[in-house]
Formats: sequence, structure tokens, C-alpha cells
Amino acid sequence: DTASTRTYSIAVIPGDGIGKEIVPPAQAVLEKATKGLVNFDYETFDLGAERYLRDGSTLPDEELNRIKNKDAILLGAVGDPRIKAGIIERGLLLKLRFALDQYVNLRPSKLFEGVTSPLANPGKIDFVVVREGTEGLYVGAGGAIRRGTPHEVATEVSINTAFGVERVVRYAFALAMKRRRHVTLVHKKNVLTNAGDMWQRIVDAVAKEFPEVTTDYQHVDAATIFIVTDPSRFDVILTDNLFGDIITDEAGAVVGGVGYSASGNINASNEYPSMFEPIHGSAPDIAGKGIANPTAAILSTALMLRHLGFDDPADRIETAVEADIKESATAKRSTAEVGSDILARL
Amino acid sequence: DTASTRTYSIAVIPGDGIGKEIVPPAQAVLEKATKGLVNFDYETFDLGAERYLRDGSTLPDEELNRIKNKDAILLGAVGDPRIKAGIIERGLLLKLRFALDQYVNLRPSKLFEGVTSPLANPGKIDFVVVREGTEGLYVGAGGAIRRGTPHEVATEVSINTAFGVERVVRYAFALAMKRRRHVTLVHKKNVLTNAGDMWQRIVDAVAKEFPEVTTDYQHVDAATIFIVTDPSRFDVILTDNLFGDIITDEAGAVVGGVGYSASGNINASNEYPSMFEPIHGSAPDIAGKGIANPTAAILSTALMLRHLGFDDPADRIETAVEADIKESATAKRSTAEVGSDILARL
Ligand SMILES: CC(C)[C@H](C(=O)O)[C@@H](O)C(=O)O
Ligand SMILES: CC(C)[C@H](C(=O)O)[C@@H](O)C(=O)O
Repeated sequence: DTASTRTYSIAVIPGDGIGKEIVPPAQAVLEKATKGLVNFDYETFDLGAERYLRDGSTLPDEELNRIKNKDAILLGAVGDPRIKAGIIERGLLLKLRFALDQYVNLRPSKLFEGVTSPLANPGKIDFVVVREGTEGLYVGAGGAIRRGTPHEVATEVSINTAFGVERVVRYAFALAMKRRRHVTLVHKKNVLTNAGDMWQRIVDAVAKEFPEVTTDYQHVDAATIFIVTDPSRFDVILTDNLFGDIITDEAGAVVGGVGYSASGNINASNEYPSMFEPIHGSAPDIAGKGIANPTAAILSTALMLRHLGFDDPADRIETAVEADIKESATAKRSTAEVGSDILARL
Repeated sequence: DTASTRTYSIAVIPGDGIGKEIVPPAQAVLEKATKGLVNFDYETFDLGAERYLRDGSTLPDEELNRIKNKDAILLGAVGDPRIKAGIIERGLLLKLRFALDQYVNLRPSKLFEGVTSPLANPGKIDFVVVREGTEGLYVGAGGAIRRGTPHEVATEVSINTAFGVERVVRYAFALAMKRRRHVTLVHKKNVLTNAGDMWQRIVDAVAKEFPEVTTDYQHVDAATIFIVTDPSRFDVILTDNLFGDIITDEAGAVVGGVGYSASGNINASNEYPSMFEPIHGSAPDIAGKGIANPTAAILSTALMLRHLGFDDPADRIETAVEADIKESATAKRSTAEVGSDILARL
């Protein structure tokens, strides 16, 4: 430790199921990769389905406020089949994304050497989905009348603002400048004409400021085709909250499984901490067996380091993961074994 | 012709781009397969982008009323890049689906022998998506304020009714009884809690009337994974309008291209004519070259015949198409050649 080594405080939310199993190896990798360079001070939060089943709380204000003062959040996975759909999602995961204004949901999709894609001819897959994280159908603005009767009407309202769209559009173009300089807007503007038209206008306006970036547009249904038939055409995919949710899972499948897909929920203005999590869920079917793959969680720590400004250790983690995958992706390894194999490469 | 041969009146809407090219071979197949069994009386409607560019109309009331009195509709494809997104879609295609209350959008996905799937190990793919066709985000209930300013807010409203959901749920279960007796509800009930909860409750209630049908549930994001990694698990997928749009295009891709995917927009109560169309679009990039594959349009006529109660000629068309694909799917053939090859097999 030197005097210049600042300490970063990290909220750790292991969550449920395999979330609890993949977070420790991710923390171990993070520690080793940053030794002597960054100090991390972890506070683990007991949040998720088990906490909810115990005391009925999903994210009490007091804990949210403590989390708000951290530098970043590392999350495993949340969700449990015993709990009604939506309670943990809305009460914890989405509550964090919204309360911390994490408007960029960054989801890289890369087919690593050594991984078997379900596609016969996957080609080179290396794109990033920039998913808006605080608007659209996720705002929870729906309702229902005459619930449970033959006259029930249930609504869901997608709310989209120029403010919210413009900031994520800008992020996508800036990111494209560091990559292959191509942005594909994915929406459904032929049906969702109000939101789609606004997204397209804002993309067109921002594109003028980035003359080196080429752009195109695809309807979300067509995008799901190209993710299967020609995924290498994509560089940066820019899309709304729901479409981003859908196509990143499909993209996770074509790069060999969501077990390799990390994500960042980023407050790019840095008013609140950003949150890093694998895109897979709590996988109750394999939880407790010690066989969950911690790779996505480990890659999430690299995204976190990059966000905090530490590109070097982030690169080292990604290089170690890529080497590990190349050599051992087809081997049957336990969670702990994958973790220690990657650790050993650092 | 015998005295008992009733005449069925069919509205034909070739539409735009390749729509115009694939409808004639489809009509020829329909004619030959039903010769001496059914009489069809066709009226062709000049609707689509070209009409709109000429006189600004998408679907005048007078024409809609004439279409309303037909027994069925055969549609090629509509859409043209010269026209702003949404005008033809909302003004013609969706207007027909809504005005004719075509609440079941039936979309079979089958990997035919001879077709190369982009998946390395596709397995046996044979499922049907039952997509709701008259509700959800397609109702056009959104709006915008402060358009074009930094304070713009654009909304899209998904409206779902117990009436509308129950009828399509019933259709899916009845269809499953004729198939492998399994229904998978696809929604996003962990986020769209109002609509998702209603869908699930109605599925659970209707399932009680079909004790032989097993059911399960998948979030739409997970469904896009399984369509790539394990599509043979599906029999009947039941879903809302937007999710159905998205996953049927993805499904079209895994069965070797939307060029093989037919669809029916069905008013299952028969108050209005149902409409049959390939799920692909007008494909302006290949229009006019005579190379569009008419298979999906031809398969749409089989769906139409089945809907009108003529299972025998429908079977014959499907058998001819399957044989044609098995033998020649990889051959480079013109639209006319595919049409005459299939005709010759009838
Ligand atoms: C768990 C769920 C609320 C979440 C989402 O829909 O955003 C998940 O699917 C994801 O993609 O992170
Ligand atoms: C053209 C468009 C309005 C339409 C839809 O979204 O339903 C198409 O994608 C389809 O699936 O038939």
C-alpha cells in the first residue's frame, strides 16, 4: 500500500441461488488483479429472496442509502421460484437500477475462442448492446381494473423521455468511437411509432456530432434474425430497456451461453454507484451443487474496474479469462476450480 | 363443378415488393390443389405502398367494407423504404388485423427436411406460435408531448383485456389437443406484472378445462435462448402481440429463414374473414428480380384451406411443398421455377 492508494468501497450483493456461489471467486480474482494498485473495502448486503422470505423486505431505505454511498456494486443474481414473479425483480434489482439512475445497461457479447456456439457458422461475434436502463416498459406504470373478473383490463405503459434517450444514445456513440464505429438502433418504430420516432430522431441528431460513426436501424424482430444468421455484422447495438433485455439473452445463447455474459448497470454521470452483474439468473436448478460457472461474474469485475478507471487490471482479468476459456471451456469443472484456474493465470 | 360446389370469395392483396411476385404462384397452387372441390372467386385489391404514394390512401373504408364480405384474404407483403415507418403498417396491415378482429396470429415453425438450419444441432423443430393479434402494444394507444424538444415524452400503452386474452388462450389449448399437448406461455411477468399476472391467471384457469395438456411458463428473454439452444422442447407457444412478433422472426431464422414461414391472422369466431400471409416482408432488396421464394406464400394458402375446412387439399399442398424442399431446397431457382416445381407435384 502506498499513500496514493485510494480505497474503493464496494457493496456486494451475492443474492440467491448460484449468485452466492459465483461472487466469492469473482471477489478473489478482483483482489488478486488489483493487489498493490487498488484497495477495496467490501460490505456484503443480505438482500434477495431469502431475506424476503425471512422478514418480507426487499430493499429497505436504510440499506439503499448505505449502498448509495459506495463506489460500486457487485451483484450475483436474485430470484427464487418460491416467490411470486416481480417481487424481488421490482423490489430489489429494478429498484437499484432506477434509484441509482443506472441508465446504461452495458452488455458485451463475445464468442470466446474455445467456446462452442450453438450456431453452425458463428463467425466472429464481438458486439456490445447498450440497453437503456431506466425507462420504457420497465417504469412500472401499468395498472389493472376489475382484476380477476371477465372484464379485467391490464395495462403496461412505456415511458420514454428525450432526456433519458439522449444520454444513452450519446454513450453508445462514444463507445462506438472506441470500437468499430458502427451503431445499430434496434426498435420497433413501424408499430411503436411515438417512442420509435423519438429514438430515431435523437439518434439522427447525435450522429451528426459523430461523423466517423456509421449508423443503421433494425426492427427488433429482424434483429433477432440477424443475431442468429449474421451476428458479426453488429458492433454497438443501441436499444430500449425491453428490447435490450430480450436480445441480450438471445445474444448470450449464440456466444455459447449466458454463463459468459457480464453486464454493467452504469450511471455514466457518476452521481450514484454503478452495478456489475452477470446477465444469467440465480439458476435454482443447479444452485448448491458448486457447479455454476463464475466466468460471467468474474468478467463483471473487469467491467467494474474499467468503469472505476483501472483499465490495466481489467485487461489482465479479461486476458486470464480468455486464456482459461480457450484451454478449458469444454472441461467439466466446479465453480471453485474455474475460479482457481483463472486466479492462477493472473 | 357440381351443384354442391360452393364459391369462396377471396380478397387478394399482393402489396409491395416481392409480395407481388409470390402471390401469383401461390394462387396457381391453390387453384390446382382445389380443382373440382372448391371454387374460388378472387378480387385483387390495389393496396400498399405504391397506392399510398399515388393517392395517399392506405385502406379506404369502401375497400375495407368489400374485404369484410370476403371469405378470406391472401396477402403478399406490404412496406416500402420510401415511406415513413408505421404508415403502411398501421394504416393497412394492422388496420386489417384490428378491423377484422383477427385475434389469433398463428405461426407454425417447422424445420423441413432438406433445409439447412443456422443451428449446428437443430434437432426436430416443430412448434406453433399462437400470437395474440388485437391487443397489447399494438393498439396504438401511445402519444407524445413536447415533440422535438429536449422535454419530449413519448409513451406506448399496452392494453390487455381478459376477454381478449381468454379467447386466444382457449384457441392455443384446443390446438395443443391436436398436437403434442403442451402449451408454453411466454411473457415477461416478472417486469410486466399487471399484464403478465392476468395472462398467467387466465392460462391457469383454462388449463383446468384441458387436463391432458401440460403447461409451462418462460420469460420472453429465456424463450429467445431456448429457441436457439433447444427448440424441440416447444409444441404450442402462447404469447402476446409484441413477444409473438419477436420470437416468430427468431424462430423463422432457426428453421432456415422466414422464407419458409407462413402465418394466419385468424378471426376464430368467423365474424370476419381471416387473412393469410407469409411472415417475411416485402424485401425491397431482392424485389423485381424474380428470385423471391414463394414457399411461405404457398404454405399460407394451405393454412387458409384448413381454416375454411378443406383439410385434404391443405395436406396435399403441404406434402408437395415438403417434397419440393427435401429435393431442391439448396438449388438456386427462380420464383417461377419453385412455383412450377410445386405445382408439378400436386
Ligand atoms: C430479472 C429481470 C428483472 C432482469 C430484466 O428484465 O432486466 C433480467 O432479465 C436482466 O436482463 O437483467
Ligand atoms: C410489419 C409489422 C407491422 C408486422 C408486425 O409487427 O406484426 C410484421 O413484423 C409481422 O410480424 O407480421
